[in-house]
Amino acid sequence: MKKNLLVAQSGGPTAAINATLAGAIREAGMHEEIDQVIGACYGIQGVLQEKFINLSELVDTEEKLHKLSVTPAAALGSCRFKLNDIAEDDSQYRQIVEIFHKHNIGYFVYIGGNDSMDTVAKLSKYCADNGIDDIQVVGGPKTIDNDLMGIDHCPGFGSAAKYIAAVFAELEQEMCVYDTKSVIVVEMMGRHAGWLTAAAVLADLPNADVPYLIYLEERPFSIEKFLSDLRAKLEENDVVMIAVSEGVHDENGTFICESVSSSKGLDVFGHAQLSGTGKILENAIRDQIGCKVRSIELNLLQRCASHILSATDIEESGRLGANAVRLAVEKKSGLMSSLRRVSNDPYQVVYEGVDIQMVANAEKKVPQEWINEEGNGVTQECIDYLLPLVQGELTCEFKNGVPDYLMLK
Amino acid sequence: MKKNLLVAQSGGPTAAINATLAGAIREAGMHEEIDQVIGACYGIQGVLQEKFINLSELVDTEEKLHKLSVTPAAALGSCRFKLNDIAEDDSQYRQIVEIFHKHNIGYFVYIGGNDSMDTVAKLSKYCADNGIDDIQVVGGPKTIDNDLMGIDHCPGFGSAAKYIAAVFAELEQEMCVYDTKSVIVVEMMGRHAGWLTAAAVLADLPNADVPYLIYLEERPFSIEKFLSDLRAKLEENDVVMIAVSEGVHDENGTFICESVSSSKGLDVFGHAQLSGTGKILENAIRDQIGCKVRSIELNLLQRCASHILSATDIEESGRLGANAVRLAVEKKSGLMSSLRRVSNDPYQVVYEGVDIQMVANAEKKVPQEWINEEGNGVTQECIDYLLPLVQGELTCEFKNGVPDYLMLK
Repeated sequence: MKKNLLVAQSGGPTAAINATLAGAIREAGMHEEIDQVIGACYGIQGVLQEKFINLSELVDTEEKLHKLSVTPAAALGSCRFKLNDIAEDDSQYRQIVEIFHKHNIGYFVYIGGNDSMDTVAKLSKYCADNGIDDIQVVGGPKTIDNDLMGIDHCPGFGSAAKYIAAVFAELEQEMCVYDTKSVIVVEMMGRHAGWLTAAAVLADLPNADVPYLIYLEERPFSIEKFLSDLRAKLEENDVVMIAVSEGVHDENGTFICESVSSSKGLDVFGHAQLSGTGKILENAIRDQIGCKVRSIELNLLQRCASHILSATDIEESGRLGANAVRLAVEKKSGLMSSLRRVSNDPYQVVYEGVDIQMVANAEKKVPQEWINEEGNGVTQECIDYLLPLVQGELTCEFKNGVPDYLMLK
Repeated sequence: MKKNLLVAQSGGPTAAINATLAGAIREAGMHEEIDQVIGACYGIQGVLQEKFINLSELVDTEEKLHKLSVTPAAALGSCRFKLNDIAEDDSQYRQIVEIFHKHNIGYFVYIGGNDSMDTVAKLSKYCADNGIDDIQVVGGPKTIDNDLMGIDHCPGFGSAAKYIAAVFAELEQEMCVYDTKSVIVVEMMGRHAGWLTAAAVLADLPNADVPYLIYLEERPFSIEKFLSDLRAKLEENDVVMIAVSEGVHDENGTFICESVSSSKGLDVFGHAQLSGTGKILENAIRDQIGCKVRSIELNLLQRCASHILSATDIEESGRLGANAVRLAVEKKSGLMSSLRRVSNDPYQVVYEGVDIQMVANAEKKVPQEWINEEGNGVTQECIDYLLPLVQGELTCEFKNGVPDYLMLK
């Protein structure tokens, strides 16, 4: 008997999460085990509320699939919702299984980041532990932070990295127009991994005239050491570009932004809400060095810059969605769709499934050996890792000069 | 006798100022009156220091001309340098004329904004008053602020407007992923004109589901009225997008950002250094309304986003550069190369010259009748004006996945 495929999206928006959705919808049409593709709006929360739409009907042409692939954010909507601990209260799980049976859902692909993989882990374990073998739960990876374990790199990261490299290239041109000493500090997202910040190095490749100082949260940060690094660079250069992770912290783990203001709260998963590191460094430079300085927080702009996508990222994100559907149909519940890099030159990846337990709630950091000795730059190995991920240019569709997206909900 | 053409750039960087330079270089090759095209690095300051490069040699192919056209910032470098008042001290003018004669410069095209047109006005007047008829001084317009008089719209504005529309479209998708009340405040540049802020309206066109509140500095701003506008929108909508000019001010002319912090200095032209309006409104919303809110300052990112150019803007910017050279060759010193819109449907412009005296040190504001009665949006007439300027997509060149520019200095 044919079963329906349910797809939902969760966690922070990215420029590529809809490409994974489109890949799943396209692949579903190639499997006779699958009847309709259903979308749940607003993640697992929407599943519990049965906020379903029929994706087989809504996205029924190759044109729409492509348009969806280059639409940013999360076309189905998202949530930040943690399922209860099964040992304490399994009512949500029973409810979900009931809803799945009611809607003839046999396959569930949940696209998201670390926290969403926690949901996949719990739900697939619940099904396995309770002998529910007609529901296959598979994870689809996604996060601009690139901090998922069990995968070479995360869908959405390549596009965000390309955006960051482009922004740095443009800002470098900006900074060089005046014949004066000046510094720019750009603050990137990434709570506990510096991957996005590392991507700034790519802008430095075509023209190495202007020095970059790059500070990842994987190394303890000291404002004194930072100012000393900067002073040294300013002796020989007019312009210095600085890339810094929002989550840089001192040796005791105190975030630099917390050291000035600690009024920020915690989100539902207990993560600190960070901001302001760039501004703090800007002020320190103005006070201590006194040169022209400006700071920019890339903020949400780096998550969904669909007007500058990495073609490689969008392609791979689609294939990961298709692979997730294949894993589900092969009854490989409890896996996350993944990719492994088998060669860097030429760049080549293979698609596979990894145990969700090794992914959920873990974080992949930038390896210490990819950070230079001074802690203010990255190594060639890091560049070699990053470069293939930003290859190829792709943009969203435009209508009348303005981005035109596929709207689902 | 053949004379050399000197070109220089001045004022804030834009994504289109190099297209005007490329247009001038290309056009120069078509006039037998012109020998070499010389570039002065760092504007009029570089002229005084004789920092010259040979553009005829450096940009000698159609490929390089195109690459230059889509390179952001100011490839020759820029300055913010005000020539002395002639009546008080004409030594700089005598020095410039001497340098021009020494280098056989008969034509000078100065590309810049309001302040740069002041330089063109003073220098051309000095030549005219002193019977120096072998030097023709012509202005090439440029400013993302779109506030030059004597021209329908300014080179660089269309690309910045397209970038802003794209960013709003993306942020709107971001904001709509969660099923909660949330507000975003985006602060745009523009000291004394709200054109850039008005461009946010373009993102609202393909999908009018999400309300936009748009505040230009052409109307007095009140935080109380703003909060009341927002409260009304939030009653019927989950998400509200807010676009605000950095320079919004109250009825007495006090900038909103000054009302909280007044520690900012003045630049060399006496302009107030503004920032923080968006952050102030974010805090007001959090305190007074209490919903989820975030503010983003587009900062330098809006000036040089060469990864999303308006094809119309780059095309017109090139033609304005070419037109400037024609005016110089025709000995029309003291004019600014300009364009006039003769039809909106189909969109059509003609190129002409306008008296520099009507441009220098003046500012073109958004007309009051293009702002809605409530002062929180723009009219259809404003949209009709803006829309042709963002038509067509063009990007910088990429090499190995990263922007690749033509470097001159």
